[in-house]
Amino acid sequence: MTNPVLVEVLRGAIVESAHRGAVAVFDADGKPFLEIGDTSRPVFPRSAVKAIQALPLVESGAADAYGFGNRELALACASHSGEPAHVELARSMLARAGLDKTALECGAHWPSNHQAEIALARAGDLPNALHNNCSGKHSGFLCTCVHSGIAHGGYVRADHALQEMVRDAMQAVTGAAHGANERATDGCSIPTYAVPLRSFALGFARMATGTGFTSLRAGAAKRLLSACTAEPFFVAGTGRADLVLMEAAPGRIFAKGGAEGVHCAAIPELGLGIALKCDDGAGRAAEAIVAAILAKLLHADEVLAAKLIELANAPIESRVGAKVGSLRPTAAFN
Amino acid sequence: MTNPVLVEVLRGAIVESAHRGAVAVFDADGKPFLEIGDTSRPVFPRSAVKAIQALPLVESGAADAYGFGNRELALACASHSGEPAHVELARSMLARAGLDKTALECGAHWPSNHQAEIALARAGDLPNALHNNCSGKHSGFLCTCVHSGIAHGGYVRADHALQEMVRDAMQAVTGAAHGANERATDGCSIPTYAVPLRSFALGFARMATGTGFTSLRAGAAKRLLSACTAEPFFVAGTGRADLVLMEAAPGRIFAKGGAEGVHCAAIPELGLGIALKCDDGAGRAAEAIVAAILAKLLHADEVLAAKLIELANAPIESRVGAKVGSLRPTAAFN
Repeated sequence: MTNPVLVEVLRGAIVESAHRGAVAVFDADGKPFLEIGDTSRPVFPRSAVKAIQALPLVESGAADAYGFGNRELALACASHSGEPAHVELARSMLARAGLDKTALECGAHWPSNHQAEIALARAGDLPNALHNNCSGKHSGFLCTCVHSGIAHGGYVRADHALQEMVRDAMQAVTGAAHGANERATDGCSIPTYAVPLRSFALGFARMATGTGFTSLRAGAAKRLLSACTAEPFFVAGTGRADLVLMEAAPGRIFAKGGAEGVHCAAIPELGLGIALKCDDGAGRAAEAIVAAILAKLLHADEVLAAKLIELANAPIESRVGAKVGSLRPTAAFN
Repeated sequence: MTNPVLVEVLRGAIVESAHRGAVAVFDADGKPFLEIGDTSRPVFPRSAVKAIQALPLVESGAADAYGFGNRELALACASHSGEPAHVELARSMLARAGLDKTALECGAHWPSNHQAEIALARAGDLPNALHNNCSGKHSGFLCTCVHSGIAHGGYVRADHALQEMVRDAMQAVTGAAHGANERATDGCSIPTYAVPLRSFALGFARMATGTGFTSLRAGAAKRLLSACTAEPFFVAGTGRADLVLMEAAPGRIFAKGGAEGVHCAAIPELGLGIALKCDDGAGRAAEAIVAAILAKLLHADEVLAAKLIELANAPIESRVGAKVGSLRPTAAFN
């Protein structure tokens, strides 16, 4: 099936571009609450599932052993913007396990936060692996290795014991098999697995409720999602969609985007998990879609819903800051 | 109609994302040579038609009066990367008309070329309007005003005499009415008009051949396209798709991208104009589509076609530079 258009991009009164996609909203028992488009199609979740990938960090006892609080756990689930506070916290996480940036295998890139990028350049510096948006996740991986007595070299490889722990958690939480046929390599060099989109909606409903989990896993999941909603700056960065969404309803919305137009979210009070993919991989559309679906699900809170609808209709501006268009969710959300 | 998928984005062996779109290839008599998808749908051409918008600069005599050669004319048709040579040439064009950057109404943004951006930051500078990717086009507009004795203030407004000259040229070349109902505002504050995609294919076939033009216009069109193919760095910038495409077949391919997934091109030796729009606005897809269609049309030159097919299948790399996927044009091009 062809997925419906979920977001239009208006310039003036005319539709300039359009984004198709699919949305799955499930409860923790595996019951679909709402589905738009083909939710059975395999999707690489990319960074949207970092909170699930961080379960071994908590379950292994590493997070406690190194004294990690909400900020460190949020950073372990983050695609951060490379701002100084992110970089310093990743450095500190590694230091507590006796490591430094040379242990990171994620590669380096300039901060996505423009102010941080310019400041780094003005200081005459170059980015290192701590600036990589995934450095918190990788620091969590490395801390898990050291605490568990696993040699950390090659920890990004699919056949490394750490990635086996991560894959086991992903399979158990999503209920989807993560085999070699589903596997490719993420931007930060770890494996990523394409499984049905709806699996991630179910997975985040379970993460938010603990349904079907052991008490150890339920506690770890709750701790990770609570850390993200308590410290959303450390999940994202200044002005980023996930920060804005989680600040719009403190403690009530978990949201995490991934590359190529994927977004996952959870609404603990409703026991619902959300997963969506924009077919063409556009982040701007995924951000509008997640805001639109959250507005629909949380419509009972009219003030919050209005704020979310505003976020779903983000303006398009000219280079002098005049509003010349906007994004607009379609009738598919009605 | 729903446009077909034209480009897939592979991660490993799995399709991660997909881009739909339409392609029109026309000759200068208005005869379709090849059409994929809905080529009658209105499309904002954005920066892809800068060469047509530059016709008044040449036709008014301003280009000759200020001694503009290939580089200046290429920059007037450019979406440049803000590299030092671009910025300096735009400054020089304005100076020849007795103006400076304060006359530009396009707004400022950081250079799209990352090395230029970092160098600017390291020097402790901020970008100005000369760094705007459209500063060459705007400098051409301003030179046209000064040479023609038109007060240049407000030259970006739809009702300014300069924009009326530009609109007249656009209407005559594309054969499509550019009215207030088709109008919105481009990122650099000038009007942009949504007209059928195929109009731009016809327009660039005419630009490449002069068919149906007065000798003044035919000469201006030839001079502008020749300037772009002779100095493609000044149309784009280091590593950019249009530079690479025009360098792949010196003098034989004209190519110019615009925002939101639009690309226009011309093949003078075949008398064909090309216009395409990726539905979702993705530049990566538009660049793959234009390379794929050029390869199809120029298949008789096997070496060139192989190079173009390689460009259409651009790799996706991880942060450590490993190839983890690629773009892939679909069977829609067969």
